[in-house]
Amino acid sequence: MPINKPERIIGHRPGVLHEQASQARILWARYDADSLEEGEFADFADLPAVPQGACLWLDIVGVPGKAGLTALEQHYGLHRLALEDVQNQGQIPKFEDFEEHLYTVLQLPQGAADTAETYQLNVFLAENLVITVHRGGGVFDPVRKRLQANRGVIRSAGADYLLYALSDVAVDMGFPRADEFSARLLELEELADDGLHDLSRDIYALRRPLSILLRQARRQRDVIDRLLERDRAEFDGQREVYWRDCLDHAERYLETISHLRESAGDLLNTHLALVSHRMNDVMKVLTVMSTVFIPLSFVVGLYGMNFDTDSPYNLPELGWRFGYVYVWGVMVLVVSGLLLFFRRKRWI
Amino acid sequence: MPINKPERIIGHRPGVLHEQASQARILWARYDADSLEEGEFADFADLPAVPQGACLWLDIVGVPGKAGLTALEQHYGLHRLALEDVQNQGQIPKFEDFEEHLYTVLQLPQGAADTAETYQLNVFLAENLVITVHRGGGVFDPVRKRLQANRGVIRSAGADYLLYALSDVAVDMGFPRADEFSARLLELEELADDGLHDLSRDIYALRRPLSILLRQARRQRDVIDRLLERDRAEFDGQREVYWRDCLDHAERYLETISHLRESAGDLLNTHLALVSHRMNDVMKVLTVMSTVFIPLSFVVGLYGMNFDTDSPYNLPELGWRFGYVYVWGVMVLVVSGLLLFFRRKRWI
Amino acid sequence: MPINKPERIIGHRPGVLHEQASQARILWARYDADSLEEGEFADFADLPAVPQGACLWLDIVGVPGKAGLTALEQHYGLHRLALEDVQNQGQIPKFEDFEEHLYTVLQLPQGAADTAETYQLNVFLAENLVITVHRGGGVFDPVRKRLQANRGVIRSAGADYLLYALSDVAVDMGFPRADEFSARLLELEELADDGLHDLSRDIYALRRPLSILLRQARRQRDVIDRLLERDRAEFDGQREVYWRDCLDHAERYLETISHLRESAGDLLNTHLALVSHRMNDVMKVLTVMSTVFIPLSFVVGLYGMNFDTDSPYNLPELGWRFGYVYVWGVMVLVVSGLLLFFRRKRWI
Amino acid sequence: MPINKPERIIGHRPGVLHEQASQARILWARYDADSLEEGEFADFADLPAVPQGACLWLDIVGVPGKAGLTALEQHYGLHRLALEDVQNQGQIPKFEDFEEHLYTVLQLPQGAADTAETYQLNVFLAENLVITVHRGGGVFDPVRKRLQANRGVIRSAGADYLLYALSDVAVDMGFPRADEFSARLLELEELADDGLHDLSRDIYALRRPLSILLRQARRQRDVIDRLLERDRAEFDGQREVYWRDCLDHAERYLETISHLRESAGDLLNTHLALVSHRMNDVMKVLTVMSTVFIPLSFVVGLYGMNFDTDSPYNLPELGWRFGYVYVWGVMVLVVSGLLLFFRRKRWI
Amino acid sequence: MPINKPERIIGHRPGVLHEQASQARILWARYDADSLEEGEFADFADLPAVPQGACLWLDIVGVPGKAGLTALEQHYGLHRLALEDVQNQGQIPKFEDFEEHLYTVLQLPQGAADTAETYQLNVFLAENLVITVHRGGGVFDPVRKRLQANRGVIRSAGADYLLYALSDVAVDMGFPRADEFSARLLELEELADDGLHDLSRDIYALRRPLSILLRQARRQRDVIDRLLERDRAEFDGQREVYWRDCLDHAERYLETISHLRESAGDLLNTHLALVSHRMNDVMKVLTVMSTVFIPLSFVVGLYGMNFDTDSPYNLPELGWRFGYVYVWGVMVLVVSGLLLFFRRKRWI
Repeated sequence: MPINKPERIIGHRPGVLHEQASQARILWARYDADSLEEGEFADFADLPAVPQGACLWLDIVGVPGKAGLTALEQHYGLHRLALEDVQNQGQIPKFEDFEEHLYTVLQLPQGAADTAETYQLNVFLAENLVITVHRGGGVFDPVRKRLQANRGVIRSAGADYLLYALSDVAVDMGFPRADEFSARLLELEELADDGLHDLSRDIYALRRPLSILLRQARRQRDVIDRLLERDRAEFDGQREVYWRDCLDHAERYLETISHLRESAGDLLNTHLALVSHRMNDVMKVLTVMSTVFIPLSFVVGLYGMNFDTDSPYNLPELGWRFGYVYVWGVMVLVVSGLLLFFRRKRWI
Repeated sequence: MPINKPERIIGHRPGVLHEQASQARILWARYDADSLEEGEFADFADLPAVPQGACLWLDIVGVPGKAGLTALEQHYGLHRLALEDVQNQGQIPKFEDFEEHLYTVLQLPQGAADTAETYQLNVFLAENLVITVHRGGGVFDPVRKRLQANRGVIRSAGADYLLYALSDVAVDMGFPRADEFSARLLELEELADDGLHDLSRDIYALRRPLSILLRQARRQRDVIDRLLERDRAEFDGQREVYWRDCLDHAERYLETISHLRESAGDLLNTHLALVSHRMNDVMKVLTVMSTVFIPLSFVVGLYGMNFDTDSPYNLPELGWRFGYVYVWGVMVLVVSGLLLFFRRKRWI
Repeated sequence: MPINKPERIIGHRPGVLHEQASQARILWARYDADSLEEGEFADFADLPAVPQGACLWLDIVGVPGKAGLTALEQHYGLHRLALEDVQNQGQIPKFEDFEEHLYTVLQLPQGAADTAETYQLNVFLAENLVITVHRGGGVFDPVRKRLQANRGVIRSAGADYLLYALSDVAVDMGFPRADEFSARLLELEELADDGLHDLSRDIYALRRPLSILLRQARRQRDVIDRLLERDRAEFDGQREVYWRDCLDHAERYLETISHLRESAGDLLNTHLALVSHRMNDVMKVLTVMSTVFIPLSFVVGLYGMNFDTDSPYNLPELGWRFGYVYVWGVMVLVVSGLLLFFRRKRWI
Repeated sequence: MPINKPERIIGHRPGVLHEQASQARILWARYDADSLEEGEFADFADLPAVPQGACLWLDIVGVPGKAGLTALEQHYGLHRLALEDVQNQGQIPKFEDFEEHLYTVLQLPQGAADTAETYQLNVFLAENLVITVHRGGGVFDPVRKRLQANRGVIRSAGADYLLYALSDVAVDMGFPRADEFSARLLELEELADDGLHDLSRDIYALRRPLSILLRQARRQRDVIDRLLERDRAEFDGQREVYWRDCLDHAERYLETISHLRESAGDLLNTHLALVSHRMNDVMKVLTVMSTVFIPLSFVVGLYGMNFDTDSPYNLPELGWRFGYVYVWGVMVLVVSGLLLFFRRKRWI
Repeated sequence: MPINKPERIIGHRPGVLHEQASQARILWARYDADSLEEGEFADFADLPAVPQGACLWLDIVGVPGKAGLTALEQHYGLHRLALEDVQNQGQIPKFEDFEEHLYTVLQLPQGAADTAETYQLNVFLAENLVITVHRGGGVFDPVRKRLQANRGVIRSAGADYLLYALSDVAVDMGFPRADEFSARLLELEELADDGLHDLSRDIYALRRPLSILLRQARRQRDVIDRLLERDRAEFDGQREVYWRDCLDHAERYLETISHLRESAGDLLNTHLALVSHRMNDVMKVLTVMSTVFIPLSFVVGLYGMNFDTDSPYNLPELGWRFGYVYVWGVMVLVVSGLLLFFRRKRWI
C-alpha cells in the first residue's frame, strides 16, 4: 500500500535535507557542436562551472546526501524545495518552474515485471545546464552515445533539446513493462480459458499495479504537455515537433495502459461468468442424477417393508411370480418419464 | 493485446527510418478544372514535381522503405517525424501541423468482420499536393472516379477539397463494419433468447473490439473537428459545410459504436439474468421433488425394520390386515400436504 | 439495433439526392399581422415566392423525392447537404447555420408506446420563410390554429417566432411518451412486487429505448440552447424569454427521461434482490426439511439390517418388548434437537 | 414516478393561465428602516402599490387562479411565462432574469418524512418589491418576526436582502428532512445488522427519494450561486458575504444528501453481502450434515439385503457374533474420517 | 451519519453567536525578525493590539463562547459570519475573503485511527495578524519552536508566511492517519487471504470513512490551490514556491486517500470472489460425494426387497452363491464409472 508521504517531519521548515549515506557517481559531459568532453567523478567538491556557449550535462546516479545537494545548490542555484524532493522518492510526476531553473520529476519502471514499482528521475534545466538525478545506472547510455556520435541536432541544439531527448527516453521506458503486463495478461487469458482455476486473485493482482501506472501515465502526459506548451511560448515552437512526438508517445503509453487495465477488467468478468457457468453445469447434472434415483430408492424401499403377507391386501406384489420383473418395469418407466420431462424442459 | 509501442529503439534519435522490403505502388493524378492526367509507377526516383496552378495527388499503396520515404522528404519537404510515423503502424488517429505541410492519421477497418483490426491511412497536405499512404488497394477508387468524371467541385476546388473527400471516405468506411457488429449482436440476441447456452464469452468477445473502436472513433471525430476548425480559421469557412457534414458522419459513427457497445452490455446482463433464472427454475423443481420423496422413503424404511413382532408393541401395523393400504394412505396424505404447502407458498 | 448509417454510397460526392417515390403534401400559409392566406398543393412546380413584409410557412408532410427537393433548392436557396439530410431519416438532433438559412433537425416520437421510435422533423428558417418537412400529418395543427385565431404574438412576430412555436411543439411531444413509459414502469413495479415472475428481460426491454431517448433528449436540449444563444446574439434577446421557456421544457423532458431510466435500473435491482431472496427462502426451508429426515432414514435403515439375532450382541433392540416405541423416542429426540438447533441459529 | 410535464396543452401559446379554484391568502408587509406596516387580505383587487423608498413584501399562501395572477401581472408587471410557471407545480429549481424583475423557483420539503415530496416556492424580485408564492403557511414566520423586531440589517437593507433572507430559509429547510433520512438509515442499519431480514427493498425505497433530492440540491446550489454572481456584478458585492454564507449552506446540504445517498448504497451492499454470507453458512452446515449421513445410510442398507446366507460368501457379517458392533465400528470410522477431512479443509 | 447541519435556527438572522461554556486558552506570540515575545492568557479582555512592523499570532485552543468571539470581532474586525462558522464544527474546508481579513477552514484528524473524525481548524489572516482557533492542543508546537529558533525565513517573512507554515502542518497531519488506514487495510488483506472469514463488513467499515476523507482532501486541495492563486495575484508569487510545495503535499495526500479507497474496493471484490470460490469448492465436493452414494443406496435397497423367492424370476441374485460378491462388483463398477465420468468432465 504505497503512502506517498513526504518525509519531512510535520511542522518542520521546508527545504531541510537529510544526511544520507547513499553513494552517488557523477557522470559529466561538456559539449557544443564541435567538441565533446566527458568524465566521471564522485566528489561533489569537483563540480564543474557552467560553460559559456556550450552545454553541461551532469548525470548523477544515486541519491546524493545533504553535502552533495548543498554543493549543487551553491554551484548552480538549484532551489532548496526541489532538492528536498530529490531526496524524497515517490513524487508524483510533475513540472515546476523555479525562476532560475526548471525542475521535472518523472518515474521510470523498475524491478519485477508485473508490478508498478518505479524510481524517480529528477531533471533540472537551467541555461546551458542539464542535471539528472536518478538511481538507474546506464539508462541514459543511448543518449550519451548520440552525443558522442556527433550526428543529428543533439550536439548543436542546446540544453533544451537534451531535456527533450531525456524525456523521450523516460517515456519510451514504459513500453517494455507494458509489454510484460500484456504477456502476463495473455497467459492468464489462456489459463482462464478452461474455467477450472480461480484466477480472480491473479487478475486483481495484475489490475492493481495497472491502476497505479495509469495515474502516473496521466500525470506524465500532463508534464510532457506542459513542456510542449513552454517550448511553444518561449521558443516560438522551434522544437515543437519533437515535443509533440514525445507527447504522442506519452499518449500512446497512456492508451496502452488504459487498454490493458480495461482488458484485465474484461478478463475478470469473462472468467467469473465462465466459472459460474461451469458450476451451474456441475450442479445441474448432479441434481438431475439424484432426482432420478430418489423415486427408485422409494420403490425398492417400498418392497422392503415387512408387512404380514398372510393378508392378501398386504404387498400382494411380493407374492407375484413376476413381481421382480414388474418392479423393474415400474422403475424403468419412472426413469424414462423423468428423463423425458427433463429433456422436454431442456434441462439436460 | 495491442501494445501501440513506437518501434523506435529507446533513446535513439527521432526520425530514423527503417529499411523495409515492402513493395509500394504509386498512383498519381495531376488535375485542374480542365485537365486530368493519371499514371502509376513503382520507383520513387520518378516522383513528379508539384505543379503550379494544378493539384497533384500521390496515392501510395503499401508502406515504402527508407529509400522511398527519403525521396518523399527531399522532393516535397515532408517532415522526418511524420515519415517515421508512416512506417509505424498503430498510430492513434491524429492531426499534426508541420509548418510546411499537414499530416493526418486515420484508421481504416480491415480483416475479419467482428474485430477491431485496422490499417493506417496517412495523408499529407501541402500546397497543391496531397499524398496518401496506406495498405488498402482500391479504397479510394470512388474518389478517383469522381476526379475522372469531372463533375462537382472536386476538380476545381483544390487540394483542400481532395483532403475532405478522402477523409469522408475514411469516415464512411466505418459504417459497414458497424453493420457487421450489429448483425452479430442480433444473432447473439436470438441465441441468447432461450437461455440455454452460455454466451457471456461471445458477448465479451464482441464488446472488447467495440471498446477499441469507440476510442478510435472518438479520436477520429476530434481529428475531423480540428480539420473543420482549421478550414474556418484559414479559409473563412469556405468549405465549412462540407467538413461539418463529414463531422456529422463521424459523430454518427461514434454514436453508433457507442450504442452498439452499450447494447452488448445490456445483452450480457439480460443474458446472465436469464441464465440465472433458468438455473433457479431447475433447482427449485428438482428440490421440490426430492423433498416430496424424502418423507416417503422414511415411511417405507420404517416398516422395513425387523423388530420382533411377537411383542404387540413392536410395529403392530405390520400385522394389520390393511396395513399396506394404510401405509399408502399415510404417504398420499404426506405428499398432498406438502404439495398444498408448496402451492400455498407459491413455490410451484 | 439502429445503425445511423448515412445512405450516401461511400466515396460518392456529397449532396446527391435520391429519386424517391414518396408522396408529399404541401400545406402553405402566408401571413402577416393583418392577413392570413392558406392552401395546399401537391406539385413542387407551384411553390410560391417568399413574400416581402410577410411570412411564408411551407409544411411539407412526407419526404419529397429528388425533383421536389431540387425545386426547393432552386426556389429558396436551400443547401444541398441539408436537403440530403432531409432524405436520410435517423439524423441526430442538430442545428446548422448555412449562411443563407438555418437548418434544424429534431426527432418526434412515433409508433408503439414503449419504444424509442421517432421520425425526423426538418425545419428551415430563412428571411420571412419557414419550411418544415416531416412525416407526421396534423402534428402542427395547433400552431396552424393559433395562426388562424390571430391571437397573441404569433401573427406579428415573424418567422423566428414561428420557429420557436414549432420547436416548442416538438419538445412538448416528448412528454406523452414519457407518460407511457412511466405507466409501463408502474405496471412492472406492481408485477415485480411478489417476486414470482422473472421480469428482468421486460425491464431491460424498457431501459434500452430510454437510453436512446436520453441521448436524443440531451442533443435536443443542446439544439434549443443554441437557438437561444442565436436569438440572444442576433436579436438582442427579444424573444429570449420564450426560448428560455422552451429550453426549460427541454430540460424537464431530459430530467424526466433520465429519472425514468434511473428508476428502471433501480426497479431491476430491487427485483433481482427480491427474486434471489425468495429463492433463498425456498432453498432454506427445503434443505432444512431434508436435513431433518436424513438421520431418521438412517435410524430406520439401521433396524432393517438382517443381522443374526441369535447372537445377543446383534441388534438386541429388535427383540425388546418396547423396541418400536424406543425407536420412535430416539427419532423424536433427534428431530427436536435439530429443530432446536436450527431455531437457535435462527435458520427457521 | 414523477413526470415533470408542463401542463400547457401541446402547441398552445405560452403564458396561458388556468382558472383554478385554489384559495390564496395574501400577507403583506411594507417597511423601511423606521416603520413597518403589516396586513392580510384575500382579494387580489386590493393589491397595494409599490412604495417609493420603502419595501413591499407580498407573501401569497396558496396558488392563485387566473384572476389573481392577471392582477399581479397588471399591477407589478410580472411576466406571463413566470406566472404560468407559478401555476405549474414541479418546476426544476431555477433562476430567470426577466428584465423587469427576477424570478426564482426553489423547492421546499413537504409531507411524509422519508419521501422526496416538495412544494414550490416562487419568488419575484423587482425594485422595492418582493413577492413570494407558495403553499406552505407559516414557513416564513421567522423572517416576519425579524422584520418586526427591527434588529439587524433586514429592515434597512432593502428588497435584495429580503430575497437573501427568504432563500436562506428555503435552503435551511432541507436539513430537518435530511435528519429524518439519516435517522431512518440508522434504523435500517441496526435492522440489517443480524442479516435475517431482507431489507433491500426498504433500502432502495430510501435511496430513490435521495436521488431526486440530490438533483434538486444540485440545481438549488446553482440557483444560489447565480444569485451570488448577480450580487457581485450588480452591487459590487455589498451583500456578497451573506450570499456566500447561503451558498455554503446549500453546498453543505448537497454534501449531506450526497453522503446519505452513498451511505444507502453502501448499506445495501453490506446487507446483501451479509445475507449471502448467512445463506452460505446455512447451506454449508446442512450439506455437511447430509454428506455425513449418506454413507451411513448406505452401510445400513447394505446389511438390510436379503441374500441367502446359506452360502458362506453372502453377507457373512450378518452371522458374526459381533456383526452389529462391527457395523457401528465401521460407521464411527467413516464419520470420523469425514469430519476430519472437513476440518482439515476448514469447511467446518 | 454526519449531518453537516448549520446550527443556526431556521430563519434567524445570520451571524448570531451562542453562549458556550467551553474553556479557551489563548497562546500569543509577537515577533519580528529580531525579537520574539510569547505568553498565554485565558481572558479575552486581555487581547493585545496588532503591532506595527511586527506580527501577532493568537493561537486559541478551544472554542470560545459569545463573549470571546465578540471581543475578537471588536478588537480585530473579524466578520460575524466567520465567527459563527468558528462555533459550528463540521464546516467543509473552505477559503473566504472577507475584505478586512481572510478566513480559512481546514479539518485536522482526530480520535480513533480508522475513522474519518476530524476537528476544525479556523485561521484568520489580516495585516500583521494571524489567529488560529481549534481544539487540538499542541498541534502547532513545531511551528512555535521554529519561531523561537529564529532560523529560516519564518521570523522575517511576515504573517502570510505563518499562514503557509500552519497550512503546511494541517496538510501533513493527514498522512499519519493515512498510514493507519493503510496498516488496517494490510491487516485485512492478510485475514482475507484464506477466504474463511466474512470480511465484507469490515472492508465496508473501512471504505466509508475513506469516502468522507476523500471529499475533504479534494476540498482541502482546492483551498490550498486558491491560497496559491492569491499569493500569485497579490505578492507577485514571492512565496509561490512554498505554496506550490504545500499544494504538492495536498495532492499527494489526495492521491494516497484515493488510492487507499480504490484498494479497499479491490480488496472487497477479491475477497468476495474468493469466498464464493471456496463455497463453490465445498458444494462441488459434497455434491459429488452424495451423487456417488445415491446409486449405491439404490442397489442395496434393491436387494433388501422381500419378494417371494420361490418364483425363480424374483430376485434370483439373492440365491446365488456369490450374490454378495456380485453386488459389490456392481457397486465398484458404478462408482468407478461415475468417478471416471467426473474426472473426464474435470469436475474433480
